[in-house]
Amino acid sequence: MSADNDQQAREQLIDLAAQFYDQFELGEIPHMSVPTRTKNNIEYSEELNVWVYGDRESTRSANSVRGARKLLKAVYTIEFLADQLEQDRSSTLRELYYLSESWDNKEAQFNDQDESNGLIEDLEIVSGVTREDFHMRPEESGAKVMGPLRIREQTNRGDRDIHCQLDVGQGGYQIPNNPDTIEFLDNDAEFVLCVETGGMRDRLVENGFDEEYDALIVHLGGQPARATRRLTKRLHDELDLPVTVFADGDPWSYRIYGSVAYGSIKSAHLSEYLATPEAQYIGIQPADIVEYDLPTDPLSDSDINALESELEDPRFQTDYWEEQIELQLEIGKKSEQQSLAARGLDFVTDTYLPERLSEMGVL
Amino acid sequence: MSADNDQQAREQLIDLAAQFYDQFELGEIPHMSVPTRTKNNIEYSEELNVWVYGDRESTRSANSVRGARKLLKAVYTIEFLADQLEQDRSSTLRELYYLSESWDNKEAQFNDQDESNGLIEDLEIVSGVTREDFHMRPEESGAKVMGPLRIREQTNRGDRDIHCQLDVGQGGYQIPNNPDTIEFLDNDAEFVLCVETGGMRDRLVENGFDEEYDALIVHLGGQPARATRRLTKRLHDELDLPVTVFADGDPWSYRIYGSVAYGSIKSAHLSEYLATPEAQYIGIQPADIVEYDLPTDPLSDSDINALESELEDPRFQTDYWEEQIELQLEIGKKSEQQSLAARGLDFVTDTYLPERLSEMGVL
Repeated sequence: MSADNDQQAREQLIDLAAQFYDQFELGEIPHMSVPTRTKNNIEYSEELNVWVYGDRESTRSANSVRGARKLLKAVYTIEFLADQLEQDRSSTLRELYYLSESWDNKEAQFNDQDESNGLIEDLEIVSGVTREDFHMRPEESGAKVMGPLRIREQTNRGDRDIHCQLDVGQGGYQIPNNPDTIEFLDNDAEFVLCVETGGMRDRLVENGFDEEYDALIVHLGGQPARATRRLTKRLHDELDLPVTVFADGDPWSYRIYGSVAYGSIKSAHLSEYLATPEAQYIGIQPADIVEYDLPTDPLSDSDINALESELEDPRFQTDYWEEQIELQLEIGKKSEQQSLAARGLDFVTDTYLPERLSEMGVL
Repeated sequence: MSADNDQQAREQLIDLAAQFYDQFELGEIPHMSVPTRTKNNIEYSEELNVWVYGDRESTRSANSVRGARKLLKAVYTIEFLADQLEQDRSSTLRELYYLSESWDNKEAQFNDQDESNGLIEDLEIVSGVTREDFHMRPEESGAKVMGPLRIREQTNRGDRDIHCQLDVGQGGYQIPNNPDTIEFLDNDAEFVLCVETGGMRDRLVENGFDEEYDALIVHLGGQPARATRRLTKRLHDELDLPVTVFADGDPWSYRIYGSVAYGSIKSAHLSEYLATPEAQYIGIQPADIVEYDLPTDPLSDSDINALESELEDPRFQTDYWEEQIELQLEIGKKSEQQSLAARGLDFVTDTYLPERLSEMGVL
């Protein structure tokens, strides 16, 4: 995070608080408008290919005790965040909640963490500054990267130059909570390969797939953390690298792909910051289950429901996904990525991935 | 992992298979005895301070079709592991299960992953070699370390010398799946501080606690992975460092402490390899909740049940734990480690930890 960015985030917060003063001065009741964050007010933008908020707004106004208390909490939180930025410190959402207990005005303290989390989301949306730029750290840390990339990370104890193959152990480079502290120095990468499971990530690293194909292997670790999605997007946008996602062949893994590619309903205001709509799905595809005769498990009822709701999901309304999902419902089976081991431990790196990546035009 | 170790593990596996030949030659029905792995056959060793198996044994014998099939699977698995060690490769438990589908003899294939996992545990116990020494990688990777320690990790692409403060980003050094590939080069550490949550780990790193107190901060990330526990034990045994555990103040976190200190029932055969009986619990203690007037949540019914079962657990039958657990049942409350933020973001590093570590005789 550059000092410039910090300064800008701080100014945007203070501007927000200043609005309340202006409203007072104009004889208006202080208020703040934010897009309504319900499912009804979330739209899939065909243009941007991500989820965005619609036009509906809710107003937090001091014309009721409840509304006035909300604005009071907002002002205390803005002060805390502005101080935090000035001192170049950071905190977690949970710490903010607990910290409010030390505030002098009892009315400003949060009743529960949902309330403080919601307020931070309001401030993100209204100020157009992300939580990371407020120096609010997530609880969940990012995953790890292995591949031909040299980065410089600004840490709070100085800069660190790290090559994500030569300067790290078998575990790779640990993505920091705020990946915008990373500068990309140089790289020989051809593409990004996001991998769902740790077992498969380790297989690819052991087999030297990153070295042989100049791949940046990003471990997702299930539903990816914000930091992991943000870094993936930056690798795509700034280094112009194709992004591919390699996951299990079941509806939950398609959702993992969806959150990398299109963002999530919960963080629709962040889609432009976190989502990589150009990300392509490698597999396991239902077609692979048939073609490679993979070991399978039968679809459970909840798998079937999830597949059916994906058919209704605008993110999956493409010929490709309709064909795959319908095929899966027809065969009634799912396969894990590690099931490729049934063809030998090297099948995934010698045969499956090269074939799929060629088909997709990545290799 | 040194080549010597690999060679030794390989020999022990082959000796195991050779036993079956010897039994054939002596006119015996081939068989293998393993300690019974049920709750009844697990004892708390007062001497070692960890869980160990009792004297009961089960025999897998070829005198039934079912038993013969078990031994057949064992022999195929031994062959696979011996080849894997010879080729200096590794695999996950899940890969082994899927891989068995490629074996020529259908009778040797596993029916489900429980069966292959159980067999690997049998082989660990009978051969006295750990899973890591068979080059079986866990799915769950280890957590991360930050502090004044320089290590050399043997990776499959060469050795890497890494200082766990100077050569890593804010995220720290990622513990590899098999921490026995790590050699400790030199260190200025005074003690090891294992931390349950990512939010608190990040707080300590941001506040520079590892620099100011020469602490090795090990992130546990909830119930710690085998790799994390193994590394912690090695830091204690080889570098003679006191080990402390800092967790939430609830019964689930006491169990996390218990698994670091005393091992778990599930991995009783590994206690000597994974457990650090000398590990001390920092807090959050029930006494801290009272003394520091921390924000709390009420104990749920399942919390109360868990506390009561801990009172019956030999690992917690000390004056210290009985006093703390009874106090907690009396006050009916629990607190998270991040609740210390109610006293300010620096309270944990300026006041709480130094006070507790002095009381415990660590500082």
